[in-house]
Amino acid sequence: MSTGNDLYELIVRLYPICRSITGDGVRQTLSILSEYIPLDVVETPSGTDVYDWTVPDEWNIRDAYVADASGRKVIDFQAHNLHVLNYSVGIRKRMTLEELRPHLYSLPDQPDLIPYRTSYYSRNWGFCLADKDLKALEEGEYEVVIDSTLEPGSLTYGELVVPGETDEEVLVSTHICHPSLANDNLSGIAIATFLARSLASKRSRFTYRFVFVPGTIGSITWLSRNEETVKRIRHGFVLTGLGDAGGLVYKQSRRGNVSTDRIAEHVLNTRAQPGRIIPWHPYGYDERQYCSPGFDLPVGRLSRSPHGEFPEYHTSADNLGFVKAEQLEDSLKCVEEILEVIEEDAIYQNLNPKGEPRLGKRGLYRSVAGQTDKQWSELDLLWVLSGSDSEQSLLDIAVHAKRPFSSIRRAADDLISAGLLKQVR
Amino acid sequence: MSTGNDLYELIVRLYPICRSITGDGVRQTLSILSEYIPLDVVETPSGTDVYDWTVPDEWNIRDAYVADASGRKVIDFQAHNLHVLNYSVGIRKRMTLEELRPHLYSLPDQPDLIPYRTSYYSRNWGFCLADKDLKALEEGEYEVVIDSTLEPGSLTYGELVVPGETDEEVLVSTHICHPSLANDNLSGIAIATFLARSLASKRSRFTYRFVFVPGTIGSITWLSRNEETVKRIRHGFVLTGLGDAGGLVYKQSRRGNVSTDRIAEHVLNTRAQPGRIIPWHPYGYDERQYCSPGFDLPVGRLSRSPHGEFPEYHTSADNLGFVKAEQLEDSLKCVEEILEVIEEDAIYQNLNPKGEPRLGKRGLYRSVAGQTDKQWSELDLLWVLSGSDSEQSLLDIAVHAKRPFSSIRRAADDLISAGLLKQVR
Amino acid sequence: MSTGNDLYELIVRLYPICRSITGDGVRQTLSILSEYIPLDVVETPSGTDVYDWTVPDEWNIRDAYVADASGRKVIDFQAHNLHVLNYSVGIRKRMTLEELRPHLYSLPDQPDLIPYRTSYYSRNWGFCLADKDLKALEEGEYEVVIDSTLEPGSLTYGELVVPGETDEEVLVSTHICHPSLANDNLSGIAIATFLARSLASKRSRFTYRFVFVPGTIGSITWLSRNEETVKRIRHGFVLTGLGDAGGLVYKQSRRGNVSTDRIAEHVLNTRAQPGRIIPWHPYGYDERQYCSPGFDLPVGRLSRSPHGEFPEYHTSADNLGFVKAEQLEDSLKCVEEILEVIEEDAIYQNLNPKGEPRLGKRGLYRSVAGQTDKQWSELDLLWVLSGSDSEQSLLDIAVHAKRPFSSIRRAADDLISAGLLKQVR
Repeated sequence: MSTGNDLYELIVRLYPICRSITGDGVRQTLSILSEYIPLDVVETPSGTDVYDWTVPDEWNIRDAYVADASGRKVIDFQAHNLHVLNYSVGIRKRMTLEELRPHLYSLPDQPDLIPYRTSYYSRNWGFCLADKDLKALEEGEYEVVIDSTLEPGSLTYGELVVPGETDEEVLVSTHICHPSLANDNLSGIAIATFLARSLASKRSRFTYRFVFVPGTIGSITWLSRNEETVKRIRHGFVLTGLGDAGGLVYKQSRRGNVSTDRIAEHVLNTRAQPGRIIPWHPYGYDERQYCSPGFDLPVGRLSRSPHGEFPEYHTSADNLGFVKAEQLEDSLKCVEEILEVIEEDAIYQNLNPKGEPRLGKRGLYRSVAGQTDKQWSELDLLWVLSGSDSEQSLLDIAVHAKRPFSSIRRAADDLISAGLLKQVR
Repeated sequence: MSTGNDLYELIVRLYPICRSITGDGVRQTLSILSEYIPLDVVETPSGTDVYDWTVPDEWNIRDAYVADASGRKVIDFQAHNLHVLNYSVGIRKRMTLEELRPHLYSLPDQPDLIPYRTSYYSRNWGFCLADKDLKALEEGEYEVVIDSTLEPGSLTYGELVVPGETDEEVLVSTHICHPSLANDNLSGIAIATFLARSLASKRSRFTYRFVFVPGTIGSITWLSRNEETVKRIRHGFVLTGLGDAGGLVYKQSRRGNVSTDRIAEHVLNTRAQPGRIIPWHPYGYDERQYCSPGFDLPVGRLSRSPHGEFPEYHTSADNLGFVKAEQLEDSLKCVEEILEVIEEDAIYQNLNPKGEPRLGKRGLYRSVAGQTDKQWSELDLLWVLSGSDSEQSLLDIAVHAKRPFSSIRRAADDLISAGLLKQVR
Repeated sequence: MSTGNDLYELIVRLYPICRSITGDGVRQTLSILSEYIPLDVVETPSGTDVYDWTVPDEWNIRDAYVADASGRKVIDFQAHNLHVLNYSVGIRKRMTLEELRPHLYSLPDQPDLIPYRTSYYSRNWGFCLADKDLKALEEGEYEVVIDSTLEPGSLTYGELVVPGETDEEVLVSTHICHPSLANDNLSGIAIATFLARSLASKRSRFTYRFVFVPGTIGSITWLSRNEETVKRIRHGFVLTGLGDAGGLVYKQSRRGNVSTDRIAEHVLNTRAQPGRIIPWHPYGYDERQYCSPGFDLPVGRLSRSPHGEFPEYHTSADNLGFVKAEQLEDSLKCVEEILEVIEEDAIYQNLNPKGEPRLGKRGLYRSVAGQTDKQWSELDLLWVLSGSDSEQSLLDIAVHAKRPFSSIRRAADDLISAGLLKQVR
């Protein structure tokens, strides 16, 4: 489980940082990732027009609290960065509980949890707290302090290109704007980082492009700066929420029937614990931008429990106890299995197409017929021979056979070695 | 519920009339409908050849009864017009019960109900009665009287054209040949009448043609006189059995995949109480004629419980207690929802196709993100933006989103107002 | 049940013979079949190359046993021919139980049954026996005798062509290499034989070719000698395992959507006891060879319980008690129903396409409407009229109507007699 532990440890390091869609929290995060992979850090100035949007002022925060008359901090940013409405403007003022109340956010249905709230495009300030703590606040005067700045600066994202044999690209995108939330989306950040690191040491057919972007405005900014790159994208994945205990979920691209979808679906369907496929819908993460009709990229999303389907979503319960090393490792493995198909699928020709070849004389067959009924790897050989008609690819065969691509791939390799199979394209 | 009550009241007025495929019962019915809508009444003489058929002699009936030796009427047309085999020739004769018996029809499995029976194309006479009353008849001589005429005259139907902006037509057909049966088909007659009246006061894209015809021979006669009209029909609906308590049922056209089918299916699938879709089959009402292979029109059928699936079908139990105002109103509403799609579907172009537009600055978005998870109308905006690629229509988007067309239509209107959407065709 | 009994009796005659992929057991079997049908017997010499394979030496066996020190035969080929590992080379030797043991095969999970084992392509010898008998063998010395020859000879198969009006062919193939096993495949042999006999006395559109071949090497040999014939095959069926109590199962051809598949599926779906359809997979019987990508013939397989899905498979329990006359007859009937569609499907034109024709005046309709609701043969008339648009065939109509082809065919015949239908092609 060492890879799982490594993933988890990276999450532990990143967890305390107060990230947002701009600011030093993002830079600090990318700096830690740069210890693992050679990231390019790209800055786009506030005020830059990106399609229908404008890069906002940069937000930075140092401290925030609400203190009661005795000076006791009843809400404290230092205790948990979710306590501050993300993108709050600065304030330093004494006010009554009645004046303060419209700026307090809690979850009456989950009274122990701090909610995660943002106000990026409407200047506002506020605090988030557990509903039970809100209810415990007594009438009286409070000192309200948010020591933050919201002023011209820039939006920051990270990017890494791992070149392959061709300039056709596979995009891996993950959002980096959430503060202390472990599953959403430190899990995605950690998995993308380790995936990039492992790809960097391998030969690959495709060029891999990793982008670590603030949600929505970040992917829109990246798109606006990369219209030429976009034309080379053949497959893409948004990675998020990959550390929880739920089963894997693949959300289809907007078109729903592109090769990327078919590959991801096959891998999820043939895993020991099969995943779930959900159709495209226009709500979610940055796939919304990559799949907007002006781009319509072959980009799907991989997650475990989808957002909104787990009660810990966007609360302080999405913490370091919510994600597990083995779940992170399993998610990374699934992405690698998907990439294996992208890299390894090909079309072959059965060189002995009339009748079956005699596998026995080539050492590919049991000797006493009937001795056992469950020679599965033998069955994979038969599937590859039956399907390799210069039209179907190994993926087509694996889908038809309902067998893992990796097993079909191995069978094809054995048949190539035996001189029974030839690659067509 | 005033529309429902109005529908019901029209049914109450029409219920006592003894209708058949020809005769004054039909004329009397059309005359009442003419109080609501400006119907053309069309007469086709007996003996006219209409394709494989010939318009039959006209049938009119004044009275009919069977009286026992004491003069007591044991079966009496004045009590219920179902008592007479519809299209019975006249008779006035004394006979024994044994002689009479072959002319008596009852339902042993539903001993309290009078069956509805016809003999249009084989000259015959007969009486229908409750099986318990049949069993109670004593041996002896009876006076048998049917005061009817069956002689050259004409077949009568009603027609109304509500012109639209184009001469492309939507056909609404309903049969008017059943005597005192409320659901089959006074419900269809009432709904077609009120629909015609409401359309007459609106602008519409399509021209609407309403035909009130006797079943089979009436629609065949109409078709034979309207071969040119038929070429302009783009959608059509046979309305029948729309007042009972069953859920709505749409029967597909013969082709099963025409636009009419897709529209009706979407509307039925997305109603609060979803309806049921049944495939084409060649048994039923006048869709049999409109969809015969020589015409193959895009005509489906809307009903609630399909014929033969409710025990009251073609019996005296299909009476004024069997149909309800709210069910009638719901059926009319469903037809109107279908026509809304026919009228309002169109293809749009997202004018900000690269990335999502910023809905917030246009007042189309909540301000504190995460405040609530169920902004459904907001989701409709996203669906329209995602789908409006100059190829998919609003119906395509609504089907994909599994959302009511009307919601998607409203979202599109908001986006047009915001300058984010433009009609393509 | 006379046909069922006849099928069963043929199986009884064939059961005792020790068949293999070559040798006199096959010749003896074909000689018995020649009493029923005029079979051509084809010999292919050992050593002949057939694609990737070589026809092996011919195997013949006269006797085999294992006797204990007292001379008692503890395993005896004369008692059951499954006792010998099929294709065992000759041996005559005394040896200890320890030396003998590696040559003994049993089924620990089914301790009462003798397994069926072969060693065609690896020179070996051995005995099969019930596990309980294996366990009862005492230590000591045994006399081991197999009086067999494995030497150059030939491979034998039988073939029969029943000519039809065209030279387009329907292939029926069944394997003849199994020794005393009743369901696998004396059932297939018996049904193919009786089918051939009954077809020989009828006019048919297609030419029927029956091949009785040893499994794998036999069908490969036949294919290698018949490459021109293969081009004329329009439909084909491998028959096997058709006598047991399981429901009928049709395994699709490799392409899975050829006309043969559609026809077999329709017949199985509309039988009183519907059969099961399973998709192509590359394991099984001689369909593996006929459907290899170099031929890719429209050949499916009909069986009852598929191999490996019944515990009696390839054991001494697949005996004369395991197959039943009525099951054999039902299987033969199903094949005949499939051939009926192959022979009788055609496309018709409704000669009265505008509106329905008046069936009543042609004696094709009940006279008092409403008298009954279940005039199914009448409904078939309506289906044929509705569907006969010069495009859909009777099979298309039957599939759409979910009605047996034979009923639709009869309805079409009535409509042709009434002058309402004309064959288009």
